Amino acid sequence: MNECKVAVIGATGAVGQVFLKIAEERQFPISQIRLCASERSIGKTLKFNSEEIPVELCTRELLEEVDFAFISASGDISREFAPIAAEVGTVAIDDSSAFRMDQSVPLVVPEVNANDLDSHQGIVAIPNCSTTPLVMVLKSLSKVSKVKRVVVDTFQSVTGTGSAALQELEDQSSKILSNQNFSVNEYPHQIAFNVLPHIEPFQENGYTREEMKMVYETRKILHDEQLMVSATCVRVPVPISHSESMHIEFEDRVSPEEVRQILSTEAGIKVMDDPFSDVYPMPIQATGIDDVLVGRIRKDVSHPNGIAMWVVCDNLRKGAALNAIQIAEQMMKKDVVKHSNWR
Amino acid sequence: MNECKVAVIGATGAVGQVFLKIAEERQFPISQIRLCASERSIGKTLKFNSEEIPVELCTRELLEEVDFAFISASGDISREFAPIAAEVGTVAIDDSSAFRMDQSVPLVVPEVNANDLDSHQGIVAIPNCSTTPLVMVLKSLSKVSKVKRVVVDTFQSVTGTGSAALQELEDQSSKILSNQNFSVNEYPHQIAFNVLPHIEPFQENGYTREEMKMVYETRKILHDEQLMVSATCVRVPVPISHSESMHIEFEDRVSPEEVRQILSTEAGIKVMDDPFSDVYPMPIQATGIDDVLVGRIRKDVSHPNGIAMWVVCDNLRKGAALNAIQIAEQMMKKDVVKHSNWR
Repeated sequence: MNECKVAVIGATGAVGQVFLKIAEERQFPISQIRLCASERSIGKTLKFNSEEIPVELCTRELLEEVDFAFISASGDISREFAPIAAEVGTVAIDDSSAFRMDQSVPLVVPEVNANDLDSHQGIVAIPNCSTTPLVMVLKSLSKVSKVKRVVVDTFQSVTGTGSAALQELEDQSSKILSNQNFSVNEYPHQIAFNVLPHIEPFQENGYTREEMKMVYETRKILHDEQLMVSATCVRVPVPISHSESMHIEFEDRVSPEEVRQILSTEAGIKVMDDPFSDVYPMPIQATGIDDVLVGRIRKDVSHPNGIAMWVVCDNLRKGAALNAIQIAEQMMKKDVVKHSNWR
Repeated sequence: MNECKVAVIGATGAVGQVFLKIAEERQFPISQIRLCASERSIGKTLKFNSEEIPVELCTRELLEEVDFAFISASGDISREFAPIAAEVGTVAIDDSSAFRMDQSVPLVVPEVNANDLDSHQGIVAIPNCSTTPLVMVLKSLSKVSKVKRVVVDTFQSVTGTGSAALQELEDQSSKILSNQNFSVNEYPHQIAFNVLPHIEPFQENGYTREEMKMVYETRKILHDEQLMVSATCVRVPVPISHSESMHIEFEDRVSPEEVRQILSTEAGIKVMDDPFSDVYPMPIQATGIDDVLVGRIRKDVSHPNGIAMWVVCDNLRKGAALNAIQIAEQMMKKDVVKHSNWR
């Protein structure tokens, strides 16, 4: 397969827009593109490769006509259309959490577990945007020593929620700066000039769903059910790119030099670690680029086999749209787009 | 001693201003107040208890006339005036890091180690604003089980840097929102809509000075040189109040219920932990109040004896000015203001 037909479901959203941009940048070989969104976007057109493409509603017929359906809308939309795509012989590459923990659905970051694509049955899930940089770092470092435990605190941007949350951050910020009243819709509390230790609903164990996703998705992707992970996921008033403070405990003693060395040879990872020159990853640098940025690599002074580091990744690119496109590229290269299991 | 004479050195700064406000609120028994700042504030007056007080330069003579000198300016100012205060029989209560690790200087959070005040020699240091909430929580929980290790990531507000940084956050935010050019002076990089994993200079071990303060100060205050601490200190675009994600490892198994129970009886700590009703500490709630707010208390799913929690504290109040006033209150109550050692 040298070229493919694709549908983008959620084309007008934050991830959808970045998807179109990346598909152009990478010259992803699309012979035909269909752009789907909800009722209220019908009548609009979106530009792709300087063509104006009309926005359509997603239907079974439309899904029959494409090879890939990239879905980044809501869990409900994914639950509705991904199974239909699989049924009609199309591969759904799904950005929602709806199918991630489904045993028949591969959950894939191509640099980490591309082989899991071989057994797909028509739906492939991409991980939560805060899981992706974590598994990339852990997979790479597991070549040096087995990873036993990770404590991770996140600093997540508002586009993880979507375009409306970005609008709300801007609106609240500008109203607070001019002493005006503002409204709170996207989050339970004000996000401008504040931080919220609350992403996704709370679970019985006191963690949020977002935090437990980082536990379960990481184990699934790394095929390591013994790996201990604890996360605190925090929303910060940043437009794009998620930052993560990681504390990794290995089976053996690992040096910061080894870590720096191995990460700097890894595809998709860029080491930015020259603190004495004020060089470390930040959201303003990660935004708009493909690589996961890693810095502040140091021996954890509180654990004999610990390494601490600071990782920043564009949540719309590698955290979502880019990873989805890379999955499609891999499937075409591996020639596993069509698969008898799911016919 | 029922009343005291005080000098506030750094009276026009962010902490100095809050100091005056808290001294009024608590009716701290001041018979005379002297307000000191740098040359460029001379000629100004500041209001205290509805009196207009002139701003003066600090001198040996001025220090001779007061019982307490509260110093919150720069390390250099502290290094200049705290020893003079001690020499002339005045107690310097110092907010800088200049004397914190000096063995002859008690480093005090009254709820934690008030007894250390007994041996003062004229200078008492208050901890870094990110250390204070940490030691309050750890001291309290050590009654349940010995604390072995803490991993803490901070989300620190810009007033930790000072008033100019707050101005810079506002200025950058408003210029970015209106697409104008902005300047970067207070930090190595833009702080508005960004996060900086960099507070204070970097050390040879890859940690920052701020991060290592959390290690050394915590050990000194808790009198526990074996305690393992690893911190990542991050500046976030928040005006006031520092948030901290804490992961505490105990010698024994400790339940979230025990933790909630013990913290809720502790002076200076308020448990705000009802996540299903969206109740957890946030900077917008902690700002302007005295208590350290603790929430999101849960069993750490990655460690058999671990507890995770989220703590927020007004860095200008309990993190600085309030703690300083409480130290003076304690010293008056214990009658240890005058001390022969330092005459």
